[in-house]
Amino acid sequence: MARIVQKFGGTSVADLDRIRVVAEKVKAEVDRGNQVATVVSAMAGETDRLVGLCRGVTPLHDAREYDTVVSAGEQVTSGLLAMALQTLGVPARSWLGWQIPIATDEVHGKARITGVEATELARRLEEGEVAVVAGFQGVSPRRRIGTLGRGGSDTSAVALAAALRADRCDIYTDVDGVYTADPRIVRRARKLTKITYEEMLEMASLGAKVLQTRSVEMAMKHGVPLRVLSSFADGPGTLVVDEDEIVEQEIVSGIAYSRDEAKVTVVGVPDRPGVAASVFGPLADAGINVDMIVQNVSEDGQATDVTFTVSKAELAPTVALLEAQRGALGYRHLRPDENVVKLSVIGMGMRSHAGVAKRMFSALAENGINIQVISTSEIKISVLVAEQYLELAVRALHAAYGLDAE
Amino acid sequence: MARIVQKFGGTSVADLDRIRVVAEKVKAEVDRGNQVATVVSAMAGETDRLVGLCRGVTPLHDAREYDTVVSAGEQVTSGLLAMALQTLGVPARSWLGWQIPIATDEVHGKARITGVEATELARRLEEGEVAVVAGFQGVSPRRRIGTLGRGGSDTSAVALAAALRADRCDIYTDVDGVYTADPRIVRRARKLTKITYEEMLEMASLGAKVLQTRSVEMAMKHGVPLRVLSSFADGPGTLVVDEDEIVEQEIVSGIAYSRDEAKVTVVGVPDRPGVAASVFGPLADAGINVDMIVQNVSEDGQATDVTFTVSKAELAPTVALLEAQRGALGYRHLRPDENVVKLSVIGMGMRSHAGVAKRMFSALAENGINIQVISTSEIKISVLVAEQYLELAVRALHAAYGLDAE
Repeated sequence: MARIVQKFGGTSVADLDRIRVVAEKVKAEVDRGNQVATVVSAMAGETDRLVGLCRGVTPLHDAREYDTVVSAGEQVTSGLLAMALQTLGVPARSWLGWQIPIATDEVHGKARITGVEATELARRLEEGEVAVVAGFQGVSPRRRIGTLGRGGSDTSAVALAAALRADRCDIYTDVDGVYTADPRIVRRARKLTKITYEEMLEMASLGAKVLQTRSVEMAMKHGVPLRVLSSFADGPGTLVVDEDEIVEQEIVSGIAYSRDEAKVTVVGVPDRPGVAASVFGPLADAGINVDMIVQNVSEDGQATDVTFTVSKAELAPTVALLEAQRGALGYRHLRPDENVVKLSVIGMGMRSHAGVAKRMFSALAENGINIQVISTSEIKISVLVAEQYLELAVRALHAAYGLDAE
Repeated sequence: MARIVQKFGGTSVADLDRIRVVAEKVKAEVDRGNQVATVVSAMAGETDRLVGLCRGVTPLHDAREYDTVVSAGEQVTSGLLAMALQTLGVPARSWLGWQIPIATDEVHGKARITGVEATELARRLEEGEVAVVAGFQGVSPRRRIGTLGRGGSDTSAVALAAALRADRCDIYTDVDGVYTADPRIVRRARKLTKITYEEMLEMASLGAKVLQTRSVEMAMKHGVPLRVLSSFADGPGTLVVDEDEIVEQEIVSGIAYSRDEAKVTVVGVPDRPGVAASVFGPLADAGINVDMIVQNVSEDGQATDVTFTVSKAELAPTVALLEAQRGALGYRHLRPDENVVKLSVIGMGMRSHAGVAKRMFSALAENGINIQVISTSEIKISVLVAEQYLELAVRALHAAYGLDAE
């Protein structure tokens, strides 16, 4: 007997037929003798519809009212799935965020979960009742509905799994697992059987949209084994676990990419101590998140160039901010560039293996691809290249690290 | 300075443009220096959509889950209207049933309100904040959402008005008041300036769909002055008040009708004490509501006929039930008839005036309309006639009581 939390995304509950299929999947788990809590998203398209209504009223809406409106989507799905389970003879009831309660902070629209009171839920799971929990939502200290931001149902599921001390958290989605690279680009990409939290975290934050980054962080922190699997096909999916549960660790687990990058070069900044602070201080104050940074070695000791990346959406405000500071910064000119992508090689194994970066640089060089910026972390090497090389580069790296399927 | 509860029905909040119009109406009331709490229905069509989803899962749904699903409609409207008010500079917040809380019993799907905790709402109204309350919903003792049945937002509004000791409860709808007769049938029908609770109650229960019957009962009980007015046109509407607030009481205030009637005659029942109980006992046990009843005087002392009416939807189960009891009841045969309508003449004044019934019977006789069943209450005379006479009869009665507009 295991205790399992399942999460079904919007495409998995897109209509009544799919909700019935989900109910069958839940029942199968119950029939295996397991205790099951199921977290559901809004029916596909419903959150967009509700967000559209809010935007239609005003672009500057009160986030508390926004949360009141958009949380209705998951509320509807939770009731419908509970009914569908009951028609299959499975005892079930829906739970809204405020009924459990799942406590959140007051940062409406992208609230964080501060606690889950799971005692009553656990008692009912032990009695054989399935809990159908509305994802994406909780209740703030002032008894307003708080939502967790896009993809928040993943986080709801992991928080619930942690509070229930579940044996596993199964994330059902429209892909059948985590791949060594985007299968749309690399035909020979392989599905991973296991991956570590750390690697998954790098992949998630690099745009592999399988899991919300925050849900992976939370699973890692609480040691909740995550499984990513398809709600449309059978199969074991990919297990996201602690490093020590992976017997044979590959040096590199996958190749990720992100198109959501924009590069800015500040040309001819006076080369003096504190220059980085003077460039990046105002950006940080404005809440703009800077990713990769390179400062050239000054040749004449007089002026240098600083290059960095931000998300595409933040390019325009970044340029505006730096132009406003031109007098104070004393640079010659700005060179913004949107035609870039970030490629990353990810793997726990690179901590103990030399030559991983060299292989990346060689593979790109052999294909005539120029590297613009490099950044590294303990388990990841990222490079910025021109956008037109994306597919070529991902395939070259996938082959170079021996990831291609036989 | 007055404290006003307003209620806007589904057609009044059917889309974002109409929600903006509603926000302007609320603002106008605030600008007059009044405290305002606004109760909203779901956007027109939304409740039907949600009910359709529930029925799509199963016709025999758990009413608690049904309530979880269908209450989402009012939740969305409340958030949107609060936002729309804020954009006009009016401080406002949405309130869901469980947040106030509006307490209901556990008869899910058609729950009754058991209490409204309005202290915090009243405090905020005094501070100038508009409360935008999701109608139709409350919270049960077990912290599940309870809904009040179709038209329940009227009852939400009146309950809130009673709890807030509001000076008035304005029901905004798609008609501009209560008429002496259905204006689609009687071109010379007049809009009433005032009507008593008792008369409104008779009209509401007779199918004039302006107000939910229960909301009128509750307004009468708590002495909440109700106003029915249009959200699409300006005008004072009709005020529903206590009898002593009406200076010149007409003998008859209006002519109502109901098409939702079916007649059953049980022919040749043995004429002995207890026959009525033996016929109507099983119907009552089955929850079938019997309206008009006539028992013929037996001519031979051996057998008699019993005629009664039920709603059209309950005709089939009524006939089935009586046929199953045929042996016990010993009647000769059943004669069901769906081609009937009920006409009612309503007026407080008839308590102190003789000849009101006579005038009704004469007017119908003069038009060659046969009366099948008669029933009376203190302020109402109802007759059952063949359906084809509906328009003729309503117009004849309207003229006979001097109700025609000049």
